[in-house]
Amino acid sequence: MADTLTALRSLMASHSPPLDALLVPSEDYHQSEYVSARDKRRAFVSGFTGSAGLALVTKNEALLWTDGRYFLQAEQQLSDQWRLMRMGEDPSVDIWISTTLPEGSAIGIDFWCISVETAQKWKPLFAKKQQNLVPTTRNLVDEVWKDQPQAEINPVHVHPLKFSGRSVSDKLKDLRDSLKKEKARGIIITSLDEVVWLFNVRGSDVSYSPVVHAFAVVTTNSAFFYVDKRKLSSEVKSYLEENKVIVKDYSAVSSDVALLASNQLTSANDTLSNGASGAEVNSHKIWVDPRCCYSLYSRLNPDQVLLQPSPLALPKSLKPRVSLEAASLSIWNENPVEMEGLKNAHIRDGAAVVQYFAWLDKQMQEIYGASGYFKESESQKSKKHLGDAKLTEVSVSDKLEEFRAAKEHFRGLSFPTISSVGPNGAIIHYGPKAETCAELDPNSMYLCDSGAQYLDGTTDITRTVHFGKPSEHEKRCYTAVLKGHFALGNARFPNGTTGHALDVLARVPLWSYGLDYRHGTGHGIGSYLNVHEGPHSISFRPGLNVPLQASMTVTDEPGYYEDGKFGIRLENVLIIKEAATQFNYANKGYLEFEHITWAPYQTKLIDVSLLLPEEIKWVNSYHMKCREILAPYLNESEKAWLHQATEPIAA
Amino acid sequence: MADTLTALRSLMASHSPPLDALLVPSEDYHQSEYVSARDKRRAFVSGFTGSAGLALVTKNEALLWTDGRYFLQAEQQLSDQWRLMRMGEDPSVDIWISTTLPEGSAIGIDFWCISVETAQKWKPLFAKKQQNLVPTTRNLVDEVWKDQPQAEINPVHVHPLKFSGRSVSDKLKDLRDSLKKEKARGIIITSLDEVVWLFNVRGSDVSYSPVVHAFAVVTTNSAFFYVDKRKLSSEVKSYLEENKVIVKDYSAVSSDVALLASNQLTSANDTLSNGASGAEVNSHKIWVDPRCCYSLYSRLNPDQVLLQPSPLALPKSLKPRVSLEAASLSIWNENPVEMEGLKNAHIRDGAAVVQYFAWLDKQMQEIYGASGYFKESESQKSKKHLGDAKLTEVSVSDKLEEFRAAKEHFRGLSFPTISSVGPNGAIIHYGPKAETCAELDPNSMYLCDSGAQYLDGTTDITRTVHFGKPSEHEKRCYTAVLKGHFALGNARFPNGTTGHALDVLARVPLWSYGLDYRHGTGHGIGSYLNVHEGPHSISFRPGLNVPLQASMTVTDEPGYYEDGKFGIRLENVLIIKEAATQFNYANKGYLEFEHITWAPYQTKLIDVSLLLPEEIKWVNSYHMKCREILAPYLNESEKAWLHQATEPIAA
Repeated sequence: MADTLTALRSLMASHSPPLDALLVPSEDYHQSEYVSARDKRRAFVSGFTGSAGLALVTKNEALLWTDGRYFLQAEQQLSDQWRLMRMGEDPSVDIWISTTLPEGSAIGIDFWCISVETAQKWKPLFAKKQQNLVPTTRNLVDEVWKDQPQAEINPVHVHPLKFSGRSVSDKLKDLRDSLKKEKARGIIITSLDEVVWLFNVRGSDVSYSPVVHAFAVVTTNSAFFYVDKRKLSSEVKSYLEENKVIVKDYSAVSSDVALLASNQLTSANDTLSNGASGAEVNSHKIWVDPRCCYSLYSRLNPDQVLLQPSPLALPKSLKPRVSLEAASLSIWNENPVEMEGLKNAHIRDGAAVVQYFAWLDKQMQEIYGASGYFKESESQKSKKHLGDAKLTEVSVSDKLEEFRAAKEHFRGLSFPTISSVGPNGAIIHYGPKAETCAELDPNSMYLCDSGAQYLDGTTDITRTVHFGKPSEHEKRCYTAVLKGHFALGNARFPNGTTGHALDVLARVPLWSYGLDYRHGTGHGIGSYLNVHEGPHSISFRPGLNVPLQASMTVTDEPGYYEDGKFGIRLENVLIIKEAATQFNYANKGYLEFEHITWAPYQTKLIDVSLLLPEEIKWVNSYHMKCREILAPYLNESEKAWLHQATEPIAA
Repeated sequence: MADTLTALRSLMASHSPPLDALLVPSEDYHQSEYVSARDKRRAFVSGFTGSAGLALVTKNEALLWTDGRYFLQAEQQLSDQWRLMRMGEDPSVDIWISTTLPEGSAIGIDFWCISVETAQKWKPLFAKKQQNLVPTTRNLVDEVWKDQPQAEINPVHVHPLKFSGRSVSDKLKDLRDSLKKEKARGIIITSLDEVVWLFNVRGSDVSYSPVVHAFAVVTTNSAFFYVDKRKLSSEVKSYLEENKVIVKDYSAVSSDVALLASNQLTSANDTLSNGASGAEVNSHKIWVDPRCCYSLYSRLNPDQVLLQPSPLALPKSLKPRVSLEAASLSIWNENPVEMEGLKNAHIRDGAAVVQYFAWLDKQMQEIYGASGYFKESESQKSKKHLGDAKLTEVSVSDKLEEFRAAKEHFRGLSFPTISSVGPNGAIIHYGPKAETCAELDPNSMYLCDSGAQYLDGTTDITRTVHFGKPSEHEKRCYTAVLKGHFALGNARFPNGTTGHALDVLARVPLWSYGLDYRHGTGHGIGSYLNVHEGPHSISFRPGLNVPLQASMTVTDEPGYYEDGKFGIRLENVLIIKEAATQFNYANKGYLEFEHITWAPYQTKLIDVSLLLPEEIKWVNSYHMKCREILAPYLNESEKAWLHQATEPIAA
């Protein structure tokens, strides 16, 4: 690490212009949430491996900013050479730089790794001190990183219509309609999930997310796909050609954007209509999402940029479903579509989760003398395993992956499993490491937040369980979280309502005790794509205020975390659909949620005296559906376990 | 009306410059919600008397914009010469002008009657069409209004400390601290409730609101009160002098603001410290609330204006209460203060409402053969009164005023009583007129939203009742409204939560049926001041997003309205206070509401099968408190009525 800093500082000094500081962000060229091994530059430089953070190396100092989820982990991982800057407590990086570094300082950064919105936020502050945000001539971290992993050359697959639900030409047509509406003649697409969603392809360049390192540029006449061509089989190449998608080298995007700026980006296809309906768009505007890398943005004249959120975010969030009309007109051979696929994927996934907890229950009893999932008494041997066998947070999550991997269409996990015992459960984004992780404990709460990628859908589920005797306090907290989970998941609301407006429903049961949680309540979820997707969310922050719409997916995941003691979270994925309400005031149309996650809540942890009759009824009805829906995927002993787990509760 | 338009158009033509259109807003010079008779210019011009609306007279057309509350009323009141423009459905006035009127049009308006924020919103849109918003040389409506009422010369009263709770010097000190914090050397205060609140005076220039037509300018050294001096007794003059408030003529504000702009506004007091603590504020900034009239704003250099919400709104919303510290240090002879006064005023007011409904119940049975408040059967003679006696919406509301007027400290109503039978209840801001109003109907719902001004507090309460046999649908709707009223009023929430975030709690029970209401759920309420006050509210609109704070008051008033049939609303005033929660997650401190309105809900209208056990318990407990608290104000037969009205309900 010391060598790294020394090497970096030497490169900074010899850079033209010489750099007073170097920023190393977590992000790749696409502002991805999960990045490939090669792109983990900030982790390499600082030693801190959390998913969010920003490193700053000056001539004499090295600082790392990260948020509240990661304070503990960063303290453990950063060496003495590094100073932890706590977001929300310490000054933000831009304020620190502008108030601490000398006037006129040159702050280097790889312009491929910073978004337009971030750069535009920082620059005016730096300018006040005559400081400059300087693009490095190449990525300086790559230069000093001797054993940096190679770029992945993983094959790209076509994502068939029976899973994607909408054809490329259909999506391109809608996108071009958006361009026309905004009088834009082209758009630069840099988010990996948007690129692969648009072209109905998938890959495996990045863990947890089936994306491909690629860019797209779409004009009113042409669609360009910038990707390492070695990743494309001849089959995929023909598929793209059929869909009038022009394949170019990944690195060609830079010069092509410059051509786009001067209206010289053309292709053989430009003479074809290719989905564009009619008249030439007489405009110089180029649509750029604020999360686009600053490097590409810099190739445009700011005046010609239409800087606003990508028009792909909303259609990507709307999971196609069979409408009567579409079914009768159907141009597809297969039965649609993402919505059905999502439901099927969640059923198989729920079965894996039930198999896992049934297995874990048996193990906890055998190895630790736990009273088990159903009985409520202290374990025989507190915290000590009886023989040589041992369960750790990582070993059990490997077993969970095993159950999932045996399911049809499994393609990997959708995010690193949060398998956390006792106090670790209170670390909201805890990631256990095989060497250091905790052992299972029959006398502690166990929180497991996990999900997988299936060809027909992406899953995300959290359950919290106890294999011994939970305290009254733990039960009260679990019950309050369940009540919030219920109140949100069973709400009906008119069209136009934002997730922000609904967020309070999940918190009020906790608030009545003076309890709360420091994270949002729900996020959109992709379809064999990113586990977190927008543009909507359910959060106490107003955010983009995108109304919830029928056909969106969203999670329902309130929690409660007691530092040093335990964490509780319950999470289901919901589909938003039209509600058959008795009335339809103001003709707005009303919406409701459909739960598509299936796995029991632990009735032992529910203090039934705190539940309302309608809550008891709902829990019992959800549990009956779990029995019915999951049965075909379980063996006899698993079915028996599930039967017991779903015994009705009564006041 | 035809003459009015002709006369106006003639003045528009001879104006310099000639006007292509004239805007006539509802507002007075202070952007008041309730205006004096003299200021009802928009009503005079258009004939439409609703509280909100904007008239536009062009050379050939006359248009009136109003919002959803008033569509029905405006349709009835506007003559053929007028076109109703429905806000939310038709183009807004600025869009209509810029797209309909010719390029270069001159749009006249009295700059005293338009706020800075509205003018700033309109001007750029007009500018695109080279249209100009032109100040009229005088108010053209006043010129054509032959029998315009004279300006009021009503006496100003000192509002004593035992009711106001905070001294003028204390309020001025806080205000000057705000000025210093923002480096402003002065502030222009135009809202009438802010002016009288600051100086602890009240008046009667405007119906329903005990304010005085006045402006204030406060600098770091001086405080100026612009008011017609004929309204001030020698006692009030001495009081103001003692408090170092300099009295000037109402009309002097204009030239004084110009002096303030050039830093020449001085007074004999400028050499005194007068509450200003120390150093001269070295700034040219002048604080102006965006609701300030454009006329005064125009006298300032835009660069020197600090345009942001007045710093008086928040302290005005915080009703002082006795803290242990203040009580021991007390500089006051009386016991504080607004908070206790508010509670007392609401108890007397609740007693008047109970007396009213007991009286009305008897009348409905005697005159209309109604089964009455308690029994649930059809009346003997449907809709027909039995003798000569007759009850109308207005005659019964006069009786209600009589009950209130007999109470201590009564000073008038706080807004026009909404006394509405059957379909009229669905007109949210219905105002019955003696000549045309409906007769009471034993077979219809009756909604009564009313309130009064007492020296020790302002009230606002809504109850909806039925004196015959309500339908199952009416009961279901009443019960859903009650559930929302309960869910909001009994919520606990952390500091920092906005009313916007809580709004959904009141709607979810209605939403589950596909029902909703088209108004906000709660507003702040003054203390012997405006019945509607900010800066907070509980609304589906994000608004200013001011967090709710301990010591604020707010109403809790969900409703449901079925056009042509009936309206339901239930409204209590709540005080926000610290909650003694079991826990205090994240050390935020938690808040809750205390209901201070006391009058029974009509149990006959509650479908108990739809209530949760905790809701039943709460209704019964609230009713027991009504009995206990109101008893001292009721005679024996009223007490007996209340006893029956508050009999416990059971599942």
